[in-house]
Amino acid sequence: MSMNNLGIVKRNIVRADRAAVEKLSRYGTATVHEALGRAGLMKPYMRPIYPRAALCGTAVTALLQPGDNWMLHVAAEQIQPGDVVVAACTADNTDGFFGDLLATSFKARGAKGLVIDGGCRDVAELEKMGFPVFSRAISAKGTIKATIGSVNVPIVCAGVAVNPGDVVVADADGVVVVPAAYAQQVADAAEARENLEAEKRAKLAAGVLGLDMYNMRGPLEKAGLKYVD
Amino acid sequence: MSMNNLGIVKRNIVRADRAAVEKLSRYGTATVHEALGRAGLMKPYMRPIYPRAALCGTAVTALLQPGDNWMLHVAAEQIQPGDVVVAACTADNTDGFFGDLLATSFKARGAKGLVIDGGCRDVAELEKMGFPVFSRAISAKGTIKATIGSVNVPIVCAGVAVNPGDVVVADADGVVVVPAAYAQQVADAAEARENLEAEKRAKLAAGVLGLDMYNMRGPLEKAGLKYVD
Amino acid sequence: MSMNNLGIVKRNIVRADRAAVEKLSRYGTATVHEALGRAGLMKPYMRPIYPRAALCGTAVTALLQPGDNWMLHVAAEQIQPGDVVVAACTADNTDGFFGDLLATSFKARGAKGLVIDGGCRDVAELEKMGFPVFSRAISAKGTIKATIGSVNVPIVCAGVAVNPGDVVVADADGVVVVPAAYAQQVADAAEARENLEAEKRAKLAAGVLGLDMYNMRGPLEKAGLKYVD
Amino acid sequence: MSMNNLGIVKRNIVRADRAAVEKLSRYGTATVHEALGRAGLMKPYMRPIYPRAALCGTAVTALLQPGDNWMLHVAAEQIQPGDVVVAACTADNTDGFFGDLLATSFKARGAKGLVIDGGCRDVAELEKMGFPVFSRAISAKGTIKATIGSVNVPIVCAGVAVNPGDVVVADADGVVVVPAAYAQQVADAAEARENLEAEKRAKLAAGVLGLDMYNMRGPLEKAGLKYVD
Amino acid sequence: MSMNNLGIVKRNIVRADRAAVEKLSRYGTATVHEALGRAGLMKPYMRPIYPRAALCGTAVTALLQPGDNWMLHVAAEQIQPGDVVVAACTADNTDGFFGDLLATSFKARGAKGLVIDGGCRDVAELEKMGFPVFSRAISAKGTIKATIGSVNVPIVCAGVAVNPGDVVVADADGVVVVPAAYAQQVADAAEARENLEAEKRAKLAAGVLGLDMYNMRGPLEKAGLKYVD
Amino acid sequence: MSMNNLGIVKRNIVRADRAAVEKLSRYGTATVHEALGRAGLMKPYMRPIYPRAALCGTAVTALLQPGDNWMLHVAAEQIQPGDVVVAACTADNTDGFFGDLLATSFKARGAKGLVIDGGCRDVAELEKMGFPVFSRAISAKGTIKATIGSVNVPIVCAGVAVNPGDVVVADADGVVVVPAAYAQQVADAAEARENLEAEKRAKLAAGVLGLDMYNMRGPLEKAGLKYVD
Repeated sequence: MSMNNLGIVKRNIVRADRAAVEKLSRYGTATVHEALGRAGLMKPYMRPIYPRAALCGTAVTALLQPGDNWMLHVAAEQIQPGDVVVAACTADNTDGFFGDLLATSFKARGAKGLVIDGGCRDVAELEKMGFPVFSRAISAKGTIKATIGSVNVPIVCAGVAVNPGDVVVADADGVVVVPAAYAQQVADAAEARENLEAEKRAKLAAGVLGLDMYNMRGPLEKAGLKYVD
Repeated sequence: MSMNNLGIVKRNIVRADRAAVEKLSRYGTATVHEALGRAGLMKPYMRPIYPRAALCGTAVTALLQPGDNWMLHVAAEQIQPGDVVVAACTADNTDGFFGDLLATSFKARGAKGLVIDGGCRDVAELEKMGFPVFSRAISAKGTIKATIGSVNVPIVCAGVAVNPGDVVVADADGVVVVPAAYAQQVADAAEARENLEAEKRAKLAAGVLGLDMYNMRGPLEKAGLKYVD
Repeated sequence: MSMNNLGIVKRNIVRADRAAVEKLSRYGTATVHEALGRAGLMKPYMRPIYPRAALCGTAVTALLQPGDNWMLHVAAEQIQPGDVVVAACTADNTDGFFGDLLATSFKARGAKGLVIDGGCRDVAELEKMGFPVFSRAISAKGTIKATIGSVNVPIVCAGVAVNPGDVVVADADGVVVVPAAYAQQVADAAEARENLEAEKRAKLAAGVLGLDMYNMRGPLEKAGLKYVD
Repeated sequence: MSMNNLGIVKRNIVRADRAAVEKLSRYGTATVHEALGRAGLMKPYMRPIYPRAALCGTAVTALLQPGDNWMLHVAAEQIQPGDVVVAACTADNTDGFFGDLLATSFKARGAKGLVIDGGCRDVAELEKMGFPVFSRAISAKGTIKATIGSVNVPIVCAGVAVNPGDVVVADADGVVVVPAAYAQQVADAAEARENLEAEKRAKLAAGVLGLDMYNMRGPLEKAGLKYVD
Repeated sequence: MSMNNLGIVKRNIVRADRAAVEKLSRYGTATVHEALGRAGLMKPYMRPIYPRAALCGTAVTALLQPGDNWMLHVAAEQIQPGDVVVAACTADNTDGFFGDLLATSFKARGAKGLVIDGGCRDVAELEKMGFPVFSRAISAKGTIKATIGSVNVPIVCAGVAVNPGDVVVADADGVVVVPAAYAQQVADAAEARENLEAEKRAKLAAGVLGLDMYNMRGPLEKAGLKYVD
Repeated sequence: MSMNNLGIVKRNIVRADRAAVEKLSRYGTATVHEALGRAGLMKPYMRPIYPRAALCGTAVTALLQPGDNWMLHVAAEQIQPGDVVVAACTADNTDGFFGDLLATSFKARGAKGLVIDGGCRDVAELEKMGFPVFSRAISAKGTIKATIGSVNVPIVCAGVAVNPGDVVVADADGVVVVPAAYAQQVADAAEARENLEAEKRAKLAAGVLGLDMYNMRGPLEKAGLKYVD
């Protein structure tokens, strides 16, 4: 076995439970991130390339070299319906690794979208196709196919460790990664949280203050908060 | 009296004159910023969380700790109809301090929106609610309620000193703060400026050059500008 | 002749061939940038100020001083129908050098838009006017008219050397500059490239993998890529 | 009185008590910032231009325009022995506003150094002169003298509100501003804090854990911390 | 078992082989990073807080909350001689989490230094103590002790996944992490690489070109490189 | 001839006059930049990799691909004694393109140093060798040799257009590029400027104010500056 993860394509990966993924797809990233115990969120520089882009699926990971998108072509073959390709790069790089041709291919394989810690191009076409991408940049700059990286190895993408098969949920608030083993548990916690929120929302809308609803007045006083006129 | 402003909630603040605020709400931030003598503009990283978000109101200020939104709950109680909460943080932090639950509460209190030198989440819901927020980031990351800051003390938000009661105007061009004492004067200057602009716009549309309309040819020559072929 | 380019307005510039410019306007920046041999692309911080903004035209260049837009008024007079003003600044600066009044003037002169390595304001009005701007920032901050720069001298804008008369193409993917002398050649190459892409797109949509379409399997193996289970 | 602070030089300012300033000069910024209740610290991008630069003095403030250092010449006349010039700019700008000529002038007037939210040049000469500067950037880029700002008005510098006469303390850890009215109180608190630290340092050096010295074990357990093997 | 890693202190960790760590300490980060197959390098914003700082040791990991250094006190107890504390934060934060008191405690426990994706203060004292720290920022800003994180769980620090017990090597070129299991293998590869470099250095110093030493002329020609006069 | 500059090595370049280069080497970048009419300065993110690094020489240019330093080996052969290699990259990239082996080779060829809009490594060794480098980053990250760029074509480096043979001057204040054709003229202007400065410095040291020495009081009053008490 090699010391590092370069030059490897892992074909068989264990994807998160399909029903759990489906359930997670009903919740926003803020809810899922809280349900996971406030963990798994990528850095906020990861943004949707068009308004209302959103995705949920199981991760096929790719490790790219700067200015080189060869591994995205290799990743395409590993996509199964319901997957999301999650791509990291060995260096901070905003080149346009991905465009409408690769999107056409990914879509034909059943991909739900792409999360890439790099740049994306052809964003107008991607919006027309309805193929969601979350990226650190938009750039027309092309890439080459000269150096190998890996597919389906553990990666760090935008500050989060991602393993192949993990669940990726992304929307206007960001991108969150749920370890495959906890998918069901997190989906249930998300549901419970959402149920609670509806109730709270009604109270707040009626004018009840969070100070009272959450019983904060005592703790605030104890923490030393003083009211003055 | 304490040396610093931490741990204080000021209940009685002097808000800018209501009619002046109403008048200021008719002008864009570029006009108001010029009317104020090219002052009061926050750093350009402050952006609306959804297209066409805009707000105008009197400031209720909040000083937050990184990763902690406790003081926003405290601020909610101090909101009066027509107020805008303006929140600074003691450290640069992009966490999602504010989401749809707090927005529901703020709205129920009559708030016109939020300006926060930090992150915001639930942006899709906030757009549906029509609750305008201007922030430095969008992030699903949740915050805790553990450390006190202050409400209605003077703060520095995105490079601008803000006092409770000041007028805050925000639109696609940014966020500008008008000291309460100058609200009427600035509103009048904004009106005068806007009237002048209509006239200039007509001339420019007709093909008159700014060079001639503003009598710039002489000064340019004096400054040493040379025309060559 | 002066050692540097400050204080000069060049009146007669050689614009790229009109038919070539027209042909280039049919292609996106990603295609044009590839057709030019992966060159000429500005840094990805240059973004459209409103969705779907796009432009194509011949460059009238301007070199500005920080916080000073005097040279944009001088540039206005040099605009001919079909031109795009391309403005650089002697220092990184996000001030709002350009707004709806200047846009009205530029439009009256026949300008197709503005590319500015600085800030822009009145973006809501500019969207209504349909006047496309690509900028590094949006800011309500006003500028003065006190120090001279130059018009129609060679500049470096957002990392790219631009000469007066070059073709500028901009869309959602960025801004690319085509040297005037190569306009026709690049337009033809763009056309050829686009034709090829249609064919590839069809194959990929039918499920053919890039790995096979581009004959990548051999080179990947040679490069050392290993498949594991 | 004008609505904003542009175009004003205030000659008579109330400087912090000289003895308090002297006492504050004995403590580092970390200690002073804590003594002030964790307030008054400028953003960490403010760095000394050479190793071991440090300063302590009373603020003469300057508000500059981007690319223009005129107001630093105006500020020179307002300097009294023991002062530190604190300069903000109306826009983020890294130009070299200050070099060895101005430093010679400032030094001749008795200045203790400069804090500038902008760029500085001639840093090798300034190190030889022993004239400490804390800045956001180092840049050889020159500035002009064309547009007025102000001297000795309240400013916001690197995120902190500074009033003329406030105490400015700067060292390798950053720049902290102490309001003039609290100078003595903060100096005393800094002394008390430093005395306490010596004792703590000795215990920690002897191997006592902070966990025990600060009685953290109970609170940590209560907060839910679990030890596992 | 909890879904996420918050609120946990792992007491028993498997540290990399001591002899391998000692051998790795002889090589620079550039060599170690290459020996590991060009992997394991933290982002380049991680810098030594004083010139010539360097460290090599086994990782005790800490996961901090923004503005809160409680877990560094918890980590202190887990330090064994030869360890390096590696601290990540749940949000980008430049606060001064670490200063001379904690350094005194860490040193008393036998720590070789600290790597922190956050801020550090008291840097002058730390240099005097000879306690090396690599951080993303220097800031006098203090932190609180209110919210728990974890110690000795897997973390992502400055873009690299770190497990407790991994080897951390840092010098003027950056910070590299070697998985514990590969420590010996990487140390041997580093040694081999260094031996080879001595020979190459001698040839290059004698005027032999890399073009010839590495036989690059053929491949360059094949890649299309053209020499022109 | 190719449309773009990729894949070319130009062997015969016209270097700036040797005597002019020698004369320029006596002045700092601030002086040279002013002598050139405040032009030619690279962005301030270009910093020396060790204290007191400085260089002056004629440019051999290199255009690199991200993560790939092949062209630096090609550039080595084009170096003549007195040259400085100036390297740009087709994308923003902080990888360590250059280290002590290449420095050994460059030095053997007579190079005076390197200016690179990318990363550098082995900085401790380079300091020992006394080989000055100005770069945008320091990073241990290695690069590959797979894709061709160009040598001795016009490039844009850190915001400045550089032609082969231009003079490059760099010191603690930054990096400035003087077009070869103006080398003598700029050197003379630098000398004149420096002579003037000595006189000014003496006056300022004696307490004369810039306000008086430069006759600024009238212009300031005309510009509207008001003195208040």
